[in-house]
Amino acid sequence: MKIIFSFEQLYNFSVELMVREGLKHEQGEVIAENLLEAELRGVVTHGLVRLPVYMERAREGGINKFADVKVIADNGATMILDGNNTFGQIVGKLAMGHAIEKAQKYGISFIGVRNSNHFGIAAYYSSMAIEHSMIGFSCSNASPRIAPSGGASKQLGNNPISLAFPVLDSFPIVIDMALSVAAAGKIRIAAANNEKIPLGWAIDKVGRPTEDAISALEGFLLPIGGHKGYALAFAVDLLCGMLTGSAFGKEVGKIDELSQPQRQGHVFGAIRIENFMSMDLYKDKVACYIDNIKGSKKADGSNAIYLPGELEWLAKQRNLEHGLALPVELVKKLNAIGEHYGLKLPI
Amino acid sequence: MKIIFSFEQLYNFSVELMVREGLKHEQGEVIAENLLEAELRGVVTHGLVRLPVYMERAREGGINKFADVKVIADNGATMILDGNNTFGQIVGKLAMGHAIEKAQKYGISFIGVRNSNHFGIAAYYSSMAIEHSMIGFSCSNASPRIAPSGGASKQLGNNPISLAFPVLDSFPIVIDMALSVAAAGKIRIAAANNEKIPLGWAIDKVGRPTEDAISALEGFLLPIGGHKGYALAFAVDLLCGMLTGSAFGKEVGKIDELSQPQRQGHVFGAIRIENFMSMDLYKDKVACYIDNIKGSKKADGSNAIYLPGELEWLAKQRNLEHGLALPVELVKKLNAIGEHYGLKLPI
Repeated sequence: MKIIFSFEQLYNFSVELMVREGLKHEQGEVIAENLLEAELRGVVTHGLVRLPVYMERAREGGINKFADVKVIADNGATMILDGNNTFGQIVGKLAMGHAIEKAQKYGISFIGVRNSNHFGIAAYYSSMAIEHSMIGFSCSNASPRIAPSGGASKQLGNNPISLAFPVLDSFPIVIDMALSVAAAGKIRIAAANNEKIPLGWAIDKVGRPTEDAISALEGFLLPIGGHKGYALAFAVDLLCGMLTGSAFGKEVGKIDELSQPQRQGHVFGAIRIENFMSMDLYKDKVACYIDNIKGSKKADGSNAIYLPGELEWLAKQRNLEHGLALPVELVKKLNAIGEHYGLKLPI
Repeated sequence: MKIIFSFEQLYNFSVELMVREGLKHEQGEVIAENLLEAELRGVVTHGLVRLPVYMERAREGGINKFADVKVIADNGATMILDGNNTFGQIVGKLAMGHAIEKAQKYGISFIGVRNSNHFGIAAYYSSMAIEHSMIGFSCSNASPRIAPSGGASKQLGNNPISLAFPVLDSFPIVIDMALSVAAAGKIRIAAANNEKIPLGWAIDKVGRPTEDAISALEGFLLPIGGHKGYALAFAVDLLCGMLTGSAFGKEVGKIDELSQPQRQGHVFGAIRIENFMSMDLYKDKVACYIDNIKGSKKADGSNAIYLPGELEWLAKQRNLEHGLALPVELVKKLNAIGEHYGLKLPI
């Protein structure tokens, strides 16, 4: 069963929760925007389902809700920010702002963030570049879930990367992907339904290929393209975790260790398109590319060819028009958290 | 049957071939270095097997061997170079030099190249950053071989990306990967041997999954992670092809259309590590990360965990010591080309 809410209801509830926990109003807004953007885009794994654990982390000390973000280094087109254990969203939005400012000056930028926490959907940050006529980039390390090729221990996160390209006369091209073949959530659903999973999604705890969802959950997610995804996850961690001076590899903290900082690291960047061509020319070229792809021959049994981010954009338009349908279990969890602060969503 | 040559024999042969075709000695050296680096690293698909087609393209006009590379734009940390249809290696090495220079000043750089040709192994360029205490990056678009998800026509190249990280007291971490699950070469070998290919490597010409190698060759390579690899290939092409003002998507030329420019686009970049930490601290951190991964638990049946680029580095040490073993058919092909210029490898 699902209950339908308007965007405003859920947004105001989320902001108010943060404010009553002691955050500044504008900080609560950033976190709510990020969670609701995920919810609107249909990326429910990063939507309001995360709100309870965020609040618990803020209460238990895993997140420092009063932290000040500090600039550690500022050289040319690069910076390092120290999140001092604030919400990933708070330091993330700040860092992406710097990335845009630096790219305005230098054409490209690279902003590293250390000592942060879960930052929600990566696309939230990369997409900020779009209205500035820039290509946006964001990535993060994450708590370990992936074994290196040939290994059977958690050494690497399912690290997300996002790229956003303006399209100008249509919705933007937005890539936002983690590096596993399948999300852990899909395997959890298969386990709950007593269903097998396809070979290639996961290995068991001793590193053997498995179709058993329970064994997969005890084991490791497989990265896309085997050793290729392993290499990409490693590279993202070297940039986000190691180079920024944050935790990396197996040292990155888990979101459900409520009193422990995650020490996640992120990287944000932007590329100023007008360093390469006029926006008019860019607009024509992108439109031409999109027309070629959308109009190309479909595979047998395929109804449409989608651009990266198109399905999420369609979901957002639908959800803004018709409201957001939340599972009743989620609404109960949100109300359980809300009760602590004297807040309630209508059931 | 294979014939063993020293590095110097093959290098001198390759350079001399280029010189007799009319290239400057130092230009011939760059191309030979790139091809031999692939050969040494065991990436034979990008080694001397490419030399005949390179020479033919230079003779037939597909490559302009007398082209001058021009700087089209130079703003802050970004540049655009026009290769004017020179060899990809010539403009590629030049562009990576600019990437290193710009990163020295700004901390990061982004150099776009338009109107180029096949540039050999991407790792050749990214690795140039290592001795400058930088992380190197390179990528290129390529002639179309991949269909967008849900499609059945060639719209995207099997675009390579490479990242190289200095390690300082050991071999570097070098990632160099195309975006298909399996290389087309592997499917060609299966077809020649009348063998099946695994599901997930390719789709046939109407877009159906196939285990038949012949149908796969008539169809399309599948990208890593399905829609994820499609999105990555698209992003690489938007940056390398569209943003640089080069050909993109299905317009990128094929290497075997000998009289036609490929109009490939590339991007090169570097990140200056000392904008983030001292090289001493970086060295310790990377060593710690490598120790964690190399020393971690192995999967059942696995003998070792390799770092990205480790197998290629091991191959290079072996090949430098024991010489390079070329298949006799390749030697014959090289001699067939050499004959035109009065050059011969010993058989």
